[in-house]
Amino acid sequence: MSKQPIGKLDHIGIAVKSIAEARKFWEGTLGATFMYDYERPEAGFRFAEFDLNGTIIELLEPMNEESFMHKFIVEHGEGFHHVTFDVPDTRERIAELKASGVRVLGEKEHSPASYEAFISPRSSNGVLIQIGSGYPTLSGDPEWEKIVPGLRIGKK
Amino acid sequence: MSKQPIGKLDHIGIAVKSIAEARKFWEGTLGATFMYDYERPEAGFRFAEFDLNGTIIELLEPMNEESFMHKFIVEHGEGFHHVTFDVPDTRERIAELKASGVRVLGEKEHSPASYEAFISPRSSNGVLIQIGSGYPTLSGDPEWEKIVPGLRIGKK
Repeated sequence: MSKQPIGKLDHIGIAVKSIAEARKFWEGTLGATFMYDYERPEAGFRFAEFDLNGTIIELLEPMNEESFMHKFIVEHGEGFHHVTFDVPDTRERIAELKASGVRVLGEKEHSPASYEAFISPRSSNGVLIQIGSGYPTLSGDPEWEKIVPGLRIGKK
Repeated sequence: MSKQPIGKLDHIGIAVKSIAEARKFWEGTLGATFMYDYERPEAGFRFAEFDLNGTIIELLEPMNEESFMHKFIVEHGEGFHHVTFDVPDTRERIAELKASGVRVLGEKEHSPASYEAFISPRSSNGVLIQIGSGYPTLSGDPEWEKIVPGLRIGKK
């Protein structure tokens, strides 16, 4: 009797100093394909998504020294930052996680169809796990270009 | 004109102090399904593979204090350790990687059909990348039980 899996892998997030530099390796050496990029100046970071043979690699870059992403890189160096699962019934699963004693951080509603949160590394063997629904990475929905200012699906 | 992707995601490796403890979260909370476990006493670690809705999570545990896995956890704590891509033509791709200046470590032949190596985090934005072919995680080939002593596919 196995429990229903929480969701499917959406992407692997990697903290880098410079997306422009890092993409030389992920695109040029490993053969990933650029999907889109996006800036969140209010949170101090930008990111770009690349499809590596069906696995989405997200490169995250700090936009300033106040950014949590800058602090992460100062403390840990470049590297793995988080893994994200697409969880259609996010709100219900978050309630279940909390009920079972899992620490859940950073709950946020992006749109009525898109809700997210993070499982604290303290509850998940040091791995920051983002769970959420309606991510553009997964849906590839061009509607996101209307919903999210600055999002450019499949364009450099 | 895009480059051929190097391979498909095989698994995500996570360093933990205790597989017995960690699986409570990955199985019990996230709903992953146990696939198999395996010990490599000569290298000082054991690991167990879990299928989380199509993504394989590998939990790695040190078997003694001399293990590189023990040193990793002392230095970094539990958490993400490596990501592995299944690369059918591993030897050729390793030669290409080296020719393009990428640092490649730990080349090893497990069997004529199974060859692996690691891309140094120095070349890949801090992310340890294992590349190889013929992994039992991917093939689920029962032949592995004959080839690899101690491997128990799908059994607890």
